[in-house]
Amino acid sequence: MNVTLLSYTPDPERTCAAAALTSFWHKGASETHHVLSDEEIDDILTKVMGYGHVSVIEHATFTFSLEGISRACSHQLVRHRVASYTQQSQRYVEIENFSPVLPPSVRANRDAAKVYDDVMGSVKQAYEKLIGLGIDNEDARFVLPNATPTNIVVTMNARELRHFFKMRCCERAQWEIRDVARRMLACVRPVAPRLFRRAGPSCVCEGRCPEGDLSCGRIRGAADEEG
Amino acid sequence: MNVTLLSYTPDPERTCAAAALTSFWHKGASETHHVLSDEEIDDILTKVMGYGHVSVIEHATFTFSLEGISRACSHQLVRHRVASYTQQSQRYVEIENFSPVLPPSVRANRDAAKVYDDVMGSVKQAYEKLIGLGIDNEDARFVLPNATPTNIVVTMNARELRHFFKMRCCERAQWEIRDVARRMLACVRPVAPRLFRRAGPSCVCEGRCPEGDLSCGRIRGAADEEG
Amino acid sequence: MNVTLLSYTPDPERTCAAAALTSFWHKGASETHHVLSDEEIDDILTKVMGYGHVSVIEHATFTFSLEGISRACSHQLVRHRVASYTQQSQRYVEIENFSPVLPPSVRANRDAAKVYDDVMGSVKQAYEKLIGLGIDNEDARFVLPNATPTNIVVTMNARELRHFFKMRCCERAQWEIRDVARRMLACVRPVAPRLFRRAGPSCVCEGRCPEGDLSCGRIRGAADEEG
Amino acid sequence: MNVTLLSYTPDPERTCAAAALTSFWHKGASETHHVLSDEEIDDILTKVMGYGHVSVIEHATFTFSLEGISRACSHQLVRHRVASYTQQSQRYVEIENFSPVLPPSVRANRDAAKVYDDVMGSVKQAYEKLIGLGIDNEDARFVLPNATPTNIVVTMNARELRHFFKMRCCERAQWEIRDVARRMLACVRPVAPRLFRRAGPSCVCEGRCPEGDLSCGRIRGAADEEG
Repeated sequence: MNVTLLSYTPDPERTCAAAALTSFWHKGASETHHVLSDEEIDDILTKVMGYGHVSVIEHATFTFSLEGISRACSHQLVRHRVASYTQQSQRYVEIENFSPVLPPSVRANRDAAKVYDDVMGSVKQAYEKLIGLGIDNEDARFVLPNATPTNIVVTMNARELRHFFKMRCCERAQWEIRDVARRMLACVRPVAPRLFRRAGPSCVCEGRCPEGDLSCGRIRGAADEEG
Repeated sequence: MNVTLLSYTPDPERTCAAAALTSFWHKGASETHHVLSDEEIDDILTKVMGYGHVSVIEHATFTFSLEGISRACSHQLVRHRVASYTQQSQRYVEIENFSPVLPPSVRANRDAAKVYDDVMGSVKQAYEKLIGLGIDNEDARFVLPNATPTNIVVTMNARELRHFFKMRCCERAQWEIRDVARRMLACVRPVAPRLFRRAGPSCVCEGRCPEGDLSCGRIRGAADEEG
Repeated sequence: MNVTLLSYTPDPERTCAAAALTSFWHKGASETHHVLSDEEIDDILTKVMGYGHVSVIEHATFTFSLEGISRACSHQLVRHRVASYTQQSQRYVEIENFSPVLPPSVRANRDAAKVYDDVMGSVKQAYEKLIGLGIDNEDARFVLPNATPTNIVVTMNARELRHFFKMRCCERAQWEIRDVARRMLACVRPVAPRLFRRAGPSCVCEGRCPEGDLSCGRIRGAADEEG
Repeated sequence: MNVTLLSYTPDPERTCAAAALTSFWHKGASETHHVLSDEEIDDILTKVMGYGHVSVIEHATFTFSLEGISRACSHQLVRHRVASYTQQSQRYVEIENFSPVLPPSVRANRDAAKVYDDVMGSVKQAYEKLIGLGIDNEDARFVLPNATPTNIVVTMNARELRHFFKMRCCERAQWEIRDVARRMLACVRPVAPRLFRRAGPSCVCEGRCPEGDLSCGRIRGAADEEG
């Protein structure tokens, strides 16, 4: 898996702070945007995010390239509707000799790993045979497994990213999308530390766990991890 | 594949017409909703939809159960973001001895069908072996193919449905989601004929084809199909 | 102000429960929808909503007619983007001799009430003069105040409604939209008690207050109000 | 009115082209993003936008500061739901001696202009009296007119912007939001000419007019204006 931050709103915290200031000052953002000091930006964002006025951080958007994730993972990902996606098409791209994503639990189990490798080999052969028999990509792909790697470009704003991190950085999320989410968070935190302060699962961002009996129990140590 | 209309806004055309009337009359919808005649409903909807004021038909929503569609198809479906989805989970549900979706092009090709059946058999065996070896559903499912059937409940409003039909009833859409879209249209047309008048691909709803060289050429006969 | 529930998904709890069941059972909703008992519906909704799997309640939508609210209030309302709106147009409808919305704080202050009444009289006269001088509705309306009453039809799903109630039933929300929100909650609770159990401001739905120093202090009594 | 482009995705066409390429190539965007030539970017965007695959241009977002527009205009603006807004609050900001937005039709009519000025004077006095009598901003503002200027920061992606321009650059849109839309288009065209090629009302972007009898008749000359 490869997670890259391709592009993002320049000076994202300045943009969000200028927007926030618009709501409670008589001056417009064209006047304040260029003159805000780092300290003022910090003050404004601390104040409005502290009050839960999170809509202001929607003005900062981040575009990622996620490469080599499984189709199982991309199917979960695109369920987040407040985002833009462009995904590698299995209709237009012939999926040659792919490297399937391998779950850690399978890797750790020698017998399971053997079963997994064998069936992946059979599937690749079948896919190529179908193509050879004149079946189109779009129909041959019906044999491709959830493990098939895919590439996807994702754009989300900072508010939706924080929500995504809350849901998907949690120990209770599936391991692969959790790995994606943590890498995405590692990409954005250095470029917008104030927008992603205390971003993470509920135990980090809210100091509480909604999972009840299913909790991982990590809440006791959550304070240590705050960004 | 099974497509069922589970539920929908009662008297959907009355609700949309009363909403539309709100925009250009001094009376509120609580006064007009119950007294509009069928003729008035027809007049109002013809007028506002003719002007392209399609937001009024968002007040009517439709909930479908789609059953036995492939995961390839559900992955395309959930890319439509203005909708609500609840899908069968491959994490929580063990996918026992499933009946894979079979593309018509494979069915029609005896050699391909043999390849397809064989690999599906291998995959099912591998999945069951992995479960038997103690691998969780959520990781064993990495071997499951795009052809695996799934169930999904979908709610869309009439405006989004019309857009969905425009995109997905087109000959250029993939056969499976086109089949889904046509069945959904067949479900809603009888219960809301005015909301879905001339619903369908661009050639039906707009009288033109945006596909250029890739067009199916059907535009010449489109007028015959208008609802 | 008049708040009316115009229409809603029939048997909304059954629809949401059948959708929820889809996610963790092998049967599709077309099989379960009609046979679920009230007890099963209750069990399913209690379970999934308890886990925070709130997307399933998006399948139930509710359409309201809000009449006689101020344009100040409708401007706040339409900022909720996951909803459908049709509003009385000040471009198409001539706003004759309207009854302005009167804030309680103004009503309670005899001098302020006098100022308010006088200026509303001047504004109505000016509006009528402008129309008389041949100015179109759409430009004459520039003199109309925030207090001008408007009618609007709103459709929201149960998930968005719960979010709306969380934000707008709070003592810290403005009095008018709080009044709207409470009336809307009073409309939907009887027809879908399980979907709106513990719906309300944060102190009711989450048992905590995010307002810090600005809190109304009501949290201590919140448990008493849970529906 | 002042319309300023505050910020936008750096090199927006490169970002969208790299995203588009992801869908039909085996390489991910992290490999292609930095190496695409201008010519390749042009080819890719021409191709995908020609096919109507407009979702790829969602990866480019643009943030504007709109200052001194009327509340009538901002109320229309925020009805576009696929966007992020932060608006000057009439609850938090005291609206001192404001300069009302003046419709051209009123400006051009000496008698109407006199009526307009007079009533705006009365309204300002009333607002200040109410504040003086201890009425809070949030209630005093009920007397403020639609003409009251406001500032708002708006972020939209290129796809939604094109839709916004289609709706609001049209002669049939109200003059003020049309002015806003045209200025926004003038801001983005120089920085992303390919994303906004042929952006504008239906007559420009689609070469046809949906307004029927209400058409301005401009369609005959539309070809001359294409960007």
